[in-house]
Amino acid sequence: MQVQLNPTGVLNLLSKLEVDLLQASSSTERYKLFRNCVLAVLNVGSHTDSSSEIYDKYQDFDVKLISRERGIKIELDNPPETAFVDGGIITGIHEHIFSVIRDLLFIYQRHEPTEDELQITHMVFDMLRNASALPVNTDPNMIVCWGGHSISEIEYKYTKEVGYQLGLRGLNICTGCGPGAMKGPMKGATIGHAKQRITNNRYLGLTEPSIIAAEPPNPIVNELVILPDIEKRLEAFVRTAHGIIIFPGGAGTAEELLYLLGILLHPDNQKQCLPVILTGPESSADYFKEICQFVEETLGEEALNKFEVIVGDPQKVATTLKQAMPKVREYRKSQGDAYYFNWTLKIEHQFQMPFDPTHENMANLNLSLNQNKELLAADLRRAFSGIVAGNVKDEGIREIKKHGPYQLHGETSLMEKMDTLLQAFVEQGRMKLPGSKYTPCYVVNK
Amino acid sequence: MQVQLNPTGVLNLLSKLEVDLLQASSSTERYKLFRNCVLAVLNVGSHTDSSSEIYDKYQDFDVKLISRERGIKIELDNPPETAFVDGGIITGIHEHIFSVIRDLLFIYQRHEPTEDELQITHMVFDMLRNASALPVNTDPNMIVCWGGHSISEIEYKYTKEVGYQLGLRGLNICTGCGPGAMKGPMKGATIGHAKQRITNNRYLGLTEPSIIAAEPPNPIVNELVILPDIEKRLEAFVRTAHGIIIFPGGAGTAEELLYLLGILLHPDNQKQCLPVILTGPESSADYFKEICQFVEETLGEEALNKFEVIVGDPQKVATTLKQAMPKVREYRKSQGDAYYFNWTLKIEHQFQMPFDPTHENMANLNLSLNQNKELLAADLRRAFSGIVAGNVKDEGIREIKKHGPYQLHGETSLMEKMDTLLQAFVEQGRMKLPGSKYTPCYVVNK
Amino acid sequence: MQVQLNPTGVLNLLSKLEVDLLQASSSTERYKLFRNCVLAVLNVGSHTDSSSEIYDKYQDFDVKLISRERGIKIELDNPPETAFVDGGIITGIHEHIFSVIRDLLFIYQRHEPTEDELQITHMVFDMLRNASALPVNTDPNMIVCWGGHSISEIEYKYTKEVGYQLGLRGLNICTGCGPGAMKGPMKGATIGHAKQRITNNRYLGLTEPSIIAAEPPNPIVNELVILPDIEKRLEAFVRTAHGIIIFPGGAGTAEELLYLLGILLHPDNQKQCLPVILTGPESSADYFKEICQFVEETLGEEALNKFEVIVGDPQKVATTLKQAMPKVREYRKSQGDAYYFNWTLKIEHQFQMPFDPTHENMANLNLSLNQNKELLAADLRRAFSGIVAGNVKDEGIREIKKHGPYQLHGETSLMEKMDTLLQAFVEQGRMKLPGSKYTPCYVVNK
Amino acid sequence: MQVQLNPTGVLNLLSKLEVDLLQASSSTERYKLFRNCVLAVLNVGSHTDSSSEIYDKYQDFDVKLISRERGIKIELDNPPETAFVDGGIITGIHEHIFSVIRDLLFIYQRHEPTEDELQITHMVFDMLRNASALPVNTDPNMIVCWGGHSISEIEYKYTKEVGYQLGLRGLNICTGCGPGAMKGPMKGATIGHAKQRITNNRYLGLTEPSIIAAEPPNPIVNELVILPDIEKRLEAFVRTAHGIIIFPGGAGTAEELLYLLGILLHPDNQKQCLPVILTGPESSADYFKEICQFVEETLGEEALNKFEVIVGDPQKVATTLKQAMPKVREYRKSQGDAYYFNWTLKIEHQFQMPFDPTHENMANLNLSLNQNKELLAADLRRAFSGIVAGNVKDEGIREIKKHGPYQLHGETSLMEKMDTLLQAFVEQGRMKLPGSKYTPCYVVNK
Repeated sequence: MQVQLNPTGVLNLLSKLEVDLLQASSSTERYKLFRNCVLAVLNVGSHTDSSSEIYDKYQDFDVKLISRERGIKIELDNPPETAFVDGGIITGIHEHIFSVIRDLLFIYQRHEPTEDELQITHMVFDMLRNASALPVNTDPNMIVCWGGHSISEIEYKYTKEVGYQLGLRGLNICTGCGPGAMKGPMKGATIGHAKQRITNNRYLGLTEPSIIAAEPPNPIVNELVILPDIEKRLEAFVRTAHGIIIFPGGAGTAEELLYLLGILLHPDNQKQCLPVILTGPESSADYFKEICQFVEETLGEEALNKFEVIVGDPQKVATTLKQAMPKVREYRKSQGDAYYFNWTLKIEHQFQMPFDPTHENMANLNLSLNQNKELLAADLRRAFSGIVAGNVKDEGIREIKKHGPYQLHGETSLMEKMDTLLQAFVEQGRMKLPGSKYTPCYVVNK
Repeated sequence: MQVQLNPTGVLNLLSKLEVDLLQASSSTERYKLFRNCVLAVLNVGSHTDSSSEIYDKYQDFDVKLISRERGIKIELDNPPETAFVDGGIITGIHEHIFSVIRDLLFIYQRHEPTEDELQITHMVFDMLRNASALPVNTDPNMIVCWGGHSISEIEYKYTKEVGYQLGLRGLNICTGCGPGAMKGPMKGATIGHAKQRITNNRYLGLTEPSIIAAEPPNPIVNELVILPDIEKRLEAFVRTAHGIIIFPGGAGTAEELLYLLGILLHPDNQKQCLPVILTGPESSADYFKEICQFVEETLGEEALNKFEVIVGDPQKVATTLKQAMPKVREYRKSQGDAYYFNWTLKIEHQFQMPFDPTHENMANLNLSLNQNKELLAADLRRAFSGIVAGNVKDEGIREIKKHGPYQLHGETSLMEKMDTLLQAFVEQGRMKLPGSKYTPCYVVNK
Repeated sequence: MQVQLNPTGVLNLLSKLEVDLLQASSSTERYKLFRNCVLAVLNVGSHTDSSSEIYDKYQDFDVKLISRERGIKIELDNPPETAFVDGGIITGIHEHIFSVIRDLLFIYQRHEPTEDELQITHMVFDMLRNASALPVNTDPNMIVCWGGHSISEIEYKYTKEVGYQLGLRGLNICTGCGPGAMKGPMKGATIGHAKQRITNNRYLGLTEPSIIAAEPPNPIVNELVILPDIEKRLEAFVRTAHGIIIFPGGAGTAEELLYLLGILLHPDNQKQCLPVILTGPESSADYFKEICQFVEETLGEEALNKFEVIVGDPQKVATTLKQAMPKVREYRKSQGDAYYFNWTLKIEHQFQMPFDPTHENMANLNLSLNQNKELLAADLRRAFSGIVAGNVKDEGIREIKKHGPYQLHGETSLMEKMDTLLQAFVEQGRMKLPGSKYTPCYVVNK
Repeated sequence: MQVQLNPTGVLNLLSKLEVDLLQASSSTERYKLFRNCVLAVLNVGSHTDSSSEIYDKYQDFDVKLISRERGIKIELDNPPETAFVDGGIITGIHEHIFSVIRDLLFIYQRHEPTEDELQITHMVFDMLRNASALPVNTDPNMIVCWGGHSISEIEYKYTKEVGYQLGLRGLNICTGCGPGAMKGPMKGATIGHAKQRITNNRYLGLTEPSIIAAEPPNPIVNELVILPDIEKRLEAFVRTAHGIIIFPGGAGTAEELLYLLGILLHPDNQKQCLPVILTGPESSADYFKEICQFVEETLGEEALNKFEVIVGDPQKVATTLKQAMPKVREYRKSQGDAYYFNWTLKIEHQFQMPFDPTHENMANLNLSLNQNKELLAADLRRAFSGIVAGNVKDEGIREIKKHGPYQLHGETSLMEKMDTLLQAFVEQGRMKLPGSKYTPCYVVNK
């Protein structure tokens, strides 16, 4: 099966130098990344979240760029069939391919690795701007929704209902753009927006090359940005958010929560106005108790004040956030800060620098309670980040296969808390999509 | 509770003469109709389909028009709360109020009763045009979906899935705009359209003053037209349709099917290209068998050729209709007929003239098999129409309360067939929304 | 030469009944009017202002409507060539043809002659609304420009410069839509609007069937409305105006000034906020002195207070009007009146009723100073209106040819003043376009 | 006088790093360039074309950027008054300021000097793309108009008439965006476009920092791009052009013509489809004879075949170009080349590399007929380029003041031809705007 896609979007205006950057002939590394990202967005509706499995399955998939007088055509060999309806590609997926090209070209051409905090933040800004994902003259309305890609049917319906209530109130949705808690709020909001005749509705998906295959963007996402790594993706989340909802999830959700708390605990962010709500259906009440306990015991009671827990009440979640928007607006205004990008949020170096979850790096994490809370949050974040990699990322899975599970070391009492939490994730089926038995990619050494 | 709605839409441009037409002071009859229609569109989400019950419940509801420099404001006293989110009216419902005003003013000012076939058709056209519901330069894509307002959860999900598949294929939806099978396809299509980035999506709702309270338009409907009576509403359905789907339903759905078959059986419509599909989930297979049998035994085998039955396959329904669109286009082109309005469809006098379901008129229907098929279809249509009135329409319910059930007379064999069919509707809970025991508003005298 | 125009605009959506109304076969009278109006808008750039000459010249011109699946095509036989560029019709002119059809259908279908003041005003409103010429949510910005169709090059340049200054200030232009002072302001404003990036610029042309051939709408006019007669045209002018400029002109301009003053002198209009400026280049200073003198001597000093004269200063004209707009807004708001239509302006019966300039009616005008000022203004208006008819209108020219010039009778002193003024118009070449010697169509009997 | 401009356009989305680049505190050189360009676009309507005079006159002019929550505000101290209407800045000029910021930031951040031909072309492309000046899905329609900034009234009217005829045919205009022959075609086209209801009309202005003060962009220009130097500006002209008109002009126009011929004479461009027309009113017939003679005697008869001369016939100019557009389209298509950017046009190194008109460089030009035609064209181009600099550019004027006129040396016969041509430019007043006596900035040493 071979398909040619007509040029639209960014593909209308590529220079020859740029097309060359994405050709198989140019650089194996760059081309492979490009091919894999395109494959990932085509593979939406996939029933596995193992990146390596996906890449293995579609070995005969290929993508080529062909110059034409009205722009560049894309030729796909053996693409996944789920991306097509009666032979035509779903427009949303078509657009996602352009986003891949746009962002990879940006990364290849305009991104040079730097350790400078200002430059890193500028780069996150520049990529969002380049993707037209920074709306001007718009009051705060962007709700970032985090939560598991593998959740129960009841939890999924709940995320839809929350999305519907947000949509009815004119709020927009940003997620990691995969299935589960990343898809439900967008679907619900679509119906809410339709009833309110909101046509400039935004379904912002933020992803990165190593996670995109495991969490392919659902086609409702109408603004897709592929940041270069998980740390820039996280920075993009918190700087575009006007409010954050955390639904039940597994290791990835824990990573996000720890990242967020680590930042909000910074003294400079004391006065930041960023409402955070943990929510789920009645049945997830215990889950949140466990999470709160873990947070309290590791980051202290102060951390509990950074968020609110609402159980089983979608309307209250939406109303609470809606009512917080004028305060967010007021705060930004008082700081002379933009509404579309939270420049004043302080993000320390340890949260910006990419963490490479090698076995060595994972083993060397400082997992002891006896240290500064922010540094602890940073290393806990890294630990969960590594577990996500071992669970679903291509590189991570291959490493685990080669070297066995990650070894986590640290203070016994902390190790026990982590073990309990991780064990709960496993039992509740939050680590991986259903369909196979989960084998942990880590060992908690108490 | 008192709410003022800002002028937008048609309310921006009313002349003083027109405002007067809608004031309580002007004419009791006109004002009452106006008030009741506004109440009906506000009452979406209602759990009853009894118009009289609704009107009785909201006796303290009132609506006034107030002149302002930028147009006419609407003042609502004691409106139903379900129309509001955090104190603001849902935009979709706001728009529906304008549609009520636009169409009632049209009916009051520009509609004079006529028996002339051409004039009646011109009026249906003129109302749709006045409502901007006739898109030009658009290829055929409007699928009319009929079916019950009271259906099972499984059937409802099925109508959503069909709508989703239609939406993915760029098809639009027209329904009677109430709950159940009138709402599901629009909800599903909304998600399908979002994935295909279709922004000029049309969710056309066609209703009439006497049914609007029992079947309040759901707020997804983005083009609402209130035709003056059920016959013009039916004509609007079949002249705007490029394809028709009939989901399971009760007396109203039977009325629609008989109206459609009565027209399609006319010799002049022999070559008309108008695909009709009866469809439902696996569990409704028996229901369709019964319907087909009734049709065959009353209107003959020829009538069975006018539609196709597809059970349990939403994708096939959508693909079949999608593939028929070029044929519809070709046919219209060959006749020099418009794509947006089927002028060439022949509709006989007996299907155009309003039928008033008084006890006398119902008793006088000619329900015998021994007559022209079209005339039989017309009288059968009237019989079911009357039952709908007795079930859910304000006037009908009050008449039944006063005079007892309608008496249907006719040829014994036909009477038995009707009784069987109606009995099935009752048993399957299709006559009324769940929540109360159904007492038939008719007696079939065998 | 035969040309077919594709359906667009109103032609996309005509019913068969409506098409029939405009066919040659239907009614000689209606078809002739339709044909002549279409010919008139095609004949822009014509060098004569004699309607009868134009109609005589294009006797082989014909227009037909042809039904097609996507709407109605127009077929033109032997149209004037100036309407075409390289074989294609100029889009502005194409649109004007649709305006003709839209408005004639309105007049044929929805306009029944009435003497009721409210109904007449409602009809003017209804025609403007039907033409989408009533913008909502827009602050006052419409400047009506009156003035001669036959003016000097210096005067023409001056009207362009005034238009440019108005355009730079975001003001829109409404004129009688012919050449000379009706075209210049629009051309100038086009450049001003372009520099200010104003894209919703309005160039409103108000005309009527008997004048349209003598003053064909220039293609810059992007909203053309053909009112049924001169009196409704004048009412449309004053009710849509937020400010009025009067450039030098002849009998038609005098008619407009007298109509305006007759209305503004009404006690009910005492507080009306409607700025009026008479303006022209330095060289027209004397012209305005004469006009002022005539006004003072006939309508009294009070009438002089209703307008301001500015000579040779386009920027001051524009700034004066721009600064008056907030006052107009304030006044309308204080009255609860619409911004887009001046409902509260009182227009007496004698200014609304159509005046038919037969020789008898002209001879019977009461031209004496010894009467109510408003009645005098009304009859003076009629006298000048008749002279316009005798100069350029088809019917008028033919009547004059048949019966000789109109005989105007009245009080000697008034007769002398009129004679002086008319004589000046003749000498300054304001009665007719240059190219022939002007023979007066009237005799002033002193 | 101090004015603050609200953020719109690019100013809504600047990062702090970018704002710093344009602050006075950052770099004297960059800030000065920024300030001068802003001053230049504000100074439209200026009566001098001496850049140094302008900069000297507005020494107290200052521009600052101020961060605000909705973007960056611009603060102007003592701006030229002609940019304002009743205290508000003209929107077109407001936009031009954004273009300055956008393009200078591009040059500062993303432009590194290179000698690589492909990279230079990519950079020209990238700047046009970044300015949204490359329309996709549009058939060829961009006519580049070259010609003098100082031309006679008759010539100016002629350029307007040509622009009007181009506009009527849906063609767009690109010029160097100053006064004279750069403004007339845009003004004329504005009227033509208005009559054709063309709303996506493009008035593309291409300039560069050293010429922008002498030729300030007129506010009709709705796409302004400031290329880094004259060579990239010329490349932008010829790669975006689908047709080229050359009106009478002086040294700058001669530079453009020689640049164009030098390129078109390249063997690789033999088959290029790029219509070129030299045109002017009847009175300029002699001027074109002189030009043709100079071309023939220097570049040979072959060069005469690269263009057509049309005298006194605006309609023919427009029709000729309109009819050539399908051929341009066909050619691009046959080459798989974009319509919006002529990638296949070969531009040799000597036409791409910036020429710095120092006295030394001017003296060293190889002005002898005895060499390759393309090299001769390149050096002749440089000679005229230097004269433009000496006439109107800030740097050039100051150099001439310091070191006296440029000394041009070369083969006697060529020197004589140049002298004749230059002398004619002087006599016809084409070197400088009227108002002062012209002192040549060059000496032709025969």
